Amino acid sequence: MKGYYKTDPWKIIEEGFHPEMNEASESIFSLGNGSMGQRANFEEQYSGPSLQGTYLAGIYYPDKTRVGWWKNGYPEYFAKVLNAPNWIGIDVEIDGVMLDLHHQSPSQFMRVLNMHQGYLERKFTVEVNGKQLEISSRRFLSMKRDETGVIRYAIRSLDYQGKISLTPYLEGDVVNRDSNYGERFWDIIECDAGPGTGHLISRTRKTGFTACFTMGYEVETEEDIYTPEVEVIHKEQYAANRVLLHLDKGKEVVLYKYVSVLTSLNHPPAAMARKGKELLDHAMDAGYGSLFEEHSEVWEKNWAHSDISIEGDTAAQQGIRFNIFQLNQTYTGRDERLNIGPKGFTGEKYGGSTYWDTEAYLIPFYLSTAPEEVARNLLIYRYKHLPKAIENGEKLGFSGGAALYPMVTMNGEECHNEWEITFEEIHRNGAIAFAIYNYIRYTGDDAYLAAYGLEVLIGISRFWKQRVNWSEEKQQFVMLGVTGPNEYENNVNNNWYTSKIALWTLEYTLKALSHVIESEPEAYIRIKKNTGFDLEKETEAWKEIIDKLYFPYHGEEKVFLQQEGYMDKEQRLASDLDPAERPINQHWSWDRILRSCFIKQADVLQGIYLFEDEFDLETIRRNFEFYEARTVHESSLSPCVHSILASRIGNESKAYELYLRTSRLDLDDYNNEVREGLHITSMGGTWMSVVHGFGGMKIREGLLSFDPLLPLKWEALTFKILYRGRTVKVQIKRNQVSLENLDGEGMELYLYGVKKQLETGRTLVAEITS
Amino acid sequence: MKGYYKTDPWKIIEEGFHPEMNEASESIFSLGNGSMGQRANFEEQYSGPSLQGTYLAGIYYPDKTRVGWWKNGYPEYFAKVLNAPNWIGIDVEIDGVMLDLHHQSPSQFMRVLNMHQGYLERKFTVEVNGKQLEISSRRFLSMKRDETGVIRYAIRSLDYQGKISLTPYLEGDVVNRDSNYGERFWDIIECDAGPGTGHLISRTRKTGFTACFTMGYEVETEEDIYTPEVEVIHKEQYAANRVLLHLDKGKEVVLYKYVSVLTSLNHPPAAMARKGKELLDHAMDAGYGSLFEEHSEVWEKNWAHSDISIEGDTAAQQGIRFNIFQLNQTYTGRDERLNIGPKGFTGEKYGGSTYWDTEAYLIPFYLSTAPEEVARNLLIYRYKHLPKAIENGEKLGFSGGAALYPMVTMNGEECHNEWEITFEEIHRNGAIAFAIYNYIRYTGDDAYLAAYGLEVLIGISRFWKQRVNWSEEKQQFVMLGVTGPNEYENNVNNNWYTSKIALWTLEYTLKALSHVIESEPEAYIRIKKNTGFDLEKETEAWKEIIDKLYFPYHGEEKVFLQQEGYMDKEQRLASDLDPAERPINQHWSWDRILRSCFIKQADVLQGIYLFEDEFDLETIRRNFEFYEARTVHESSLSPCVHSILASRIGNESKAYELYLRTSRLDLDDYNNEVREGLHITSMGGTWMSVVHGFGGMKIREGLLSFDPLLPLKWEALTFKILYRGRTVKVQIKRNQVSLENLDGEGMELYLYGVKKQLETGRTLVAEITS
Repeated sequence: MKGYYKTDPWKIIEEGFHPEMNEASESIFSLGNGSMGQRANFEEQYSGPSLQGTYLAGIYYPDKTRVGWWKNGYPEYFAKVLNAPNWIGIDVEIDGVMLDLHHQSPSQFMRVLNMHQGYLERKFTVEVNGKQLEISSRRFLSMKRDETGVIRYAIRSLDYQGKISLTPYLEGDVVNRDSNYGERFWDIIECDAGPGTGHLISRTRKTGFTACFTMGYEVETEEDIYTPEVEVIHKEQYAANRVLLHLDKGKEVVLYKYVSVLTSLNHPPAAMARKGKELLDHAMDAGYGSLFEEHSEVWEKNWAHSDISIEGDTAAQQGIRFNIFQLNQTYTGRDERLNIGPKGFTGEKYGGSTYWDTEAYLIPFYLSTAPEEVARNLLIYRYKHLPKAIENGEKLGFSGGAALYPMVTMNGEECHNEWEITFEEIHRNGAIAFAIYNYIRYTGDDAYLAAYGLEVLIGISRFWKQRVNWSEEKQQFVMLGVTGPNEYENNVNNNWYTSKIALWTLEYTLKALSHVIESEPEAYIRIKKNTGFDLEKETEAWKEIIDKLYFPYHGEEKVFLQQEGYMDKEQRLASDLDPAERPINQHWSWDRILRSCFIKQADVLQGIYLFEDEFDLETIRRNFEFYEARTVHESSLSPCVHSILASRIGNESKAYELYLRTSRLDLDDYNNEVREGLHITSMGGTWMSVVHGFGGMKIREGLLSFDPLLPLKWEALTFKILYRGRTVKVQIKRNQVSLENLDGEGMELYLYGVKKQLETGRTLVAEITS
Repeated sequence: MKGYYKTDPWKIIEEGFHPEMNEASESIFSLGNGSMGQRANFEEQYSGPSLQGTYLAGIYYPDKTRVGWWKNGYPEYFAKVLNAPNWIGIDVEIDGVMLDLHHQSPSQFMRVLNMHQGYLERKFTVEVNGKQLEISSRRFLSMKRDETGVIRYAIRSLDYQGKISLTPYLEGDVVNRDSNYGERFWDIIECDAGPGTGHLISRTRKTGFTACFTMGYEVETEEDIYTPEVEVIHKEQYAANRVLLHLDKGKEVVLYKYVSVLTSLNHPPAAMARKGKELLDHAMDAGYGSLFEEHSEVWEKNWAHSDISIEGDTAAQQGIRFNIFQLNQTYTGRDERLNIGPKGFTGEKYGGSTYWDTEAYLIPFYLSTAPEEVARNLLIYRYKHLPKAIENGEKLGFSGGAALYPMVTMNGEECHNEWEITFEEIHRNGAIAFAIYNYIRYTGDDAYLAAYGLEVLIGISRFWKQRVNWSEEKQQFVMLGVTGPNEYENNVNNNWYTSKIALWTLEYTLKALSHVIESEPEAYIRIKKNTGFDLEKETEAWKEIIDKLYFPYHGEEKVFLQQEGYMDKEQRLASDLDPAERPINQHWSWDRILRSCFIKQADVLQGIYLFEDEFDLETIRRNFEFYEARTVHESSLSPCVHSILASRIGNESKAYELYLRTSRLDLDDYNNEVREGLHITSMGGTWMSVVHGFGGMKIREGLLSFDPLLPLKWEALTFKILYRGRTVKVQIKRNQVSLENLDGEGMELYLYGVKKQLETGRTLVAEITS
């Protein structure tokens, strides 16, 4: 569906109504504000294909995990993001006919996502009983007041004269499409309506989360001559006001619907009805205009430091802004109990919970574009889950404080539903350790180690210690039975990436220990006591593993080997595959995929990306060429890392090709599944492929460092970086790179490997001679 | 629960009522007749712990397969053996009180399984309102008329005088305990009752099997002075007659319940009601006495050729008879559409379908104890499933007629619900090929190849050809991503057993081809056409694999290596395990089990057992000692093969220990799960461990061969073998072996490696000097 949405630097535009594309567009045009999210479902009734989706941050349900034969250690449930009561609904009746685009096909249909100001707009003309009406709606979830949603719904008659009704409502009778066995998750606690208002309080079964929706509305006609008649409707799970009025030819009626959305994460349930009404009243007092203004001001500020501008390539420009927009509306960093699900607020799939994606693909974005607390909150989220991670380890047979963080979680408990992933894909533990290092390296916040980081590192290192075993055969330590990021293998031995990040964790934990012992001895005493740490014995064991951990290597190809025995597979290249068989996960049996040499996302390259400084350019090139040729990129998390490494070795065309694939993954629906929701977490990877890839940004000896490579198709690439109190603006043109220190103190940095000084307010310009 | 059942050579006896043991006893005392089966549920109401189980051969339901994330090639459903309508029920009311042993604890409770005559008996005394009554029931499923079940239910008053009622009924409202999500499987088609009779016709949802139950009864009082009053009851799913009568002190009333059970496997549904009544009438005309007589005559005949007698060890004697009894009542070989589920007719678990157990553990038993057609029918079952096996291969990406038989099946389709097993545990294919060889080697029925066997062998060999791949690295063919019989590993490379049986299949198929081409050229032309076989090309490819297939070997230990990399595991011995942690599958996480060196059942030993002639005694001994020490025997199929090999290497104590474990697995409930049903298929293994193990029976150059080893505890072991029209009686005593040719022609055979002649009616006696 490449080219379905119109290219525009700041907008996503859908022209014409294509019911078969509606679910995809519902995902693409989703809105969120960090606390809640809403797919681009229509306000009015629509009986065509649609995936209803209203999501509340942190509200989930323990769906059943079903496997063939239960075995000890399997996760007990699969946490599912919940579809919440529908608060956007506005039914429309014209001349006694219910407006439903499934029955009355619209003309001049247009849906626009305005990323600059953060709203969704929809316009169309519709014919009812031979008469034409023009309808437009605008919706936003306030970024300023994150418990408020606002809709402006306007109907203009072109040649109709007669009765219409508008029915804003709240509807509690909702389901999840992908729930097991059609379970209903919500119990309705309260549902009431009065003239001009309605509210609905709903509580999740089992998890006991409460949510309260309170609605109000205003009706505005061009001449205030009609006093609309209002019918209050309330049923068990439905609260509404039916507003009946008379519409003249050429005239317009506008309904403003305001809804406050509260959850028990932030409010005691008993006070919700009152508090919901209060928030609603505040919003209605402010009114639509000023609500919109304050909302768009937040977006203005967001863009001021997180925008990336690409000149000369509107598709790429639109792609990157779409990614940044989604990241900023999914997670705002206000609440350390929240995290970022793979589909954010745009769909039900993947349970909406936390994966290692956060540490591997998102923290870099928030580190560079948001205040330090944002990334820090993501780290503290894991710190708070440490006891659960230790418990999770115990369930599998580990002991003595060994922490295995879950593959997927809502509250710290493992809730993935593929055992081979939960048991074997343990590299996630390393990503969580690496994020601590990454955060401190970027922010310089060394104190984080004593305050939180070291305890997590000790727990993870203890896990690695117990997870390896001594091979008498090899006379080395081995790591058996793992799955790397390449999930097209499982239960492999000595996965290079997993072993690499395990070894690195042990090394970094030793450094972190030394640092804390020396700089904050009292903190060390507390940590030692909390963790029952035996410095001598435990560190000695770690050092032995560091010395003697086995890594597979292929002497002939001179590449790190993804896992032991990989070269026993039939060696084919992705380019040999029949395009009709791709993506292979939609055409091949899982058996065939597992036994093939094809890679979903390349483990070894992921490791090289993380630990780039350890490898010379020739090594990077060799490994890149070997693995890229075997990688089918059937994970949304794959192309970004490959793009970055392609930039690193100067393979501009490959870097650009892979960049487009990550940046426009959803807009061009590469995987033919955008209807299920957007790939939110991979959007952080897209950002990385611009800033770390084309920008060549990294941290080198505590200083910012840039090695830019501008794609040939681009005229200029401009982005900003927040770094230790400074905003650095980077502009890369064909022949010139300029770095500007917009505020904060003067700084040293590297450009193309040369150390430079950059004072406040100054711009450093370097010519590129290639 | 060792010792719970009283030891007796011909009976299983439970004394005293222990509700917590009731489900276990329901399994142990199960009855069957090849066409249906019944757990030892009480006839009268029982509200204590009970697993209701009535099973009809070949009737199943496609339960949902649920996995975390569906992937291509996963089986679409999990076939489940169905709990069928209850036909045994007889409610009893005494003095207005419903008899229910959960509320009125019985005294002198006794349950007896008479294996010699094939019936279940139960006796107890119960106090109702202070009065004592003695109740006894006897039940059998006719082996002569396999659609008839009979119950004799007697109540004797000791000191009660007054009203009682007996209500024989049919009940259609039944469920499976282990069904997914509490689905109901049966729709009631007809349910009616009249004076003295009742019938119920039920149809399975989805699969559309119909079953018809028709009941009748007779009431017998000691003095025919009371005419009982009868109340006809029929509800939507329930058909009954309530028989009210007056019971005097010291008097007895007996109710005979007769039920005919028909299924749509054998009768058109439209004719069932009539046919069911007809069969019932025939049974009732014959009457209880002669029905029992003809039934026990069948058992008499069964025992005449399948009994094994062990002198000097009642526990072992009881154990082996229990196994033989169960095998004979589970499968009679009358119908080639049927097979043998792991739990036979004794429980719901494992779906009751066909596993490789049939070929590996059951065919030897039926070959030696039943007419040739019985084993042949089991082979033809697979022959008929060949098209489905090819289809199953296609689903996974194989082509050109490559057949992958399902891991579990009801109708030829794969219906297991662990993908790692269905995709990887492909050695089952080899067992199916081996069974053809085994059958022909035993019976001399070479014509089977041209008629059926060769097509199956070609399909399987084609699968192996495609399943291996050439390793450039090793310059050999490798077999990646398999699971051997040892299911405590998965996705391993170059599993010795799987590769061994694959290679053997290719070799045997080549031989079979030569045989058919030479002996039945016209049959070959037909087969070539049916299979599209390319003799030159295909056999050349097979020969190349035979020449260059990789087998892992451990040079230091001089053992065949279970799989590549096995020695990288931490090497521990089963004897090092803390007994409190055993069985490990109940104490360890699946993750820990997979990564440990512990073996559920030893692959390599399975292979050595099958291909024993290829290995010298020293090799067998080395491999046995290495693998037995690492095997935890947590599969019911494990101890028998180990016992046989222990016999082979003269390790009498180990052979005996493992024999007891297999032979009394259920009676002593080694795995603490007999309540779920009996391990029917492992019972064939028990027989093997006596006849192949202690008897040392095998086929050598087309002749029977014996190398007996009598366990020290035994005084004598006697068994019979059907072999090519002869019945050979083998008796092994401490110092003497005698072989008697009871009928048929004279024969040559081997005893302790020496060829002997044995004429009809003669006995060969050899002294043992050890």
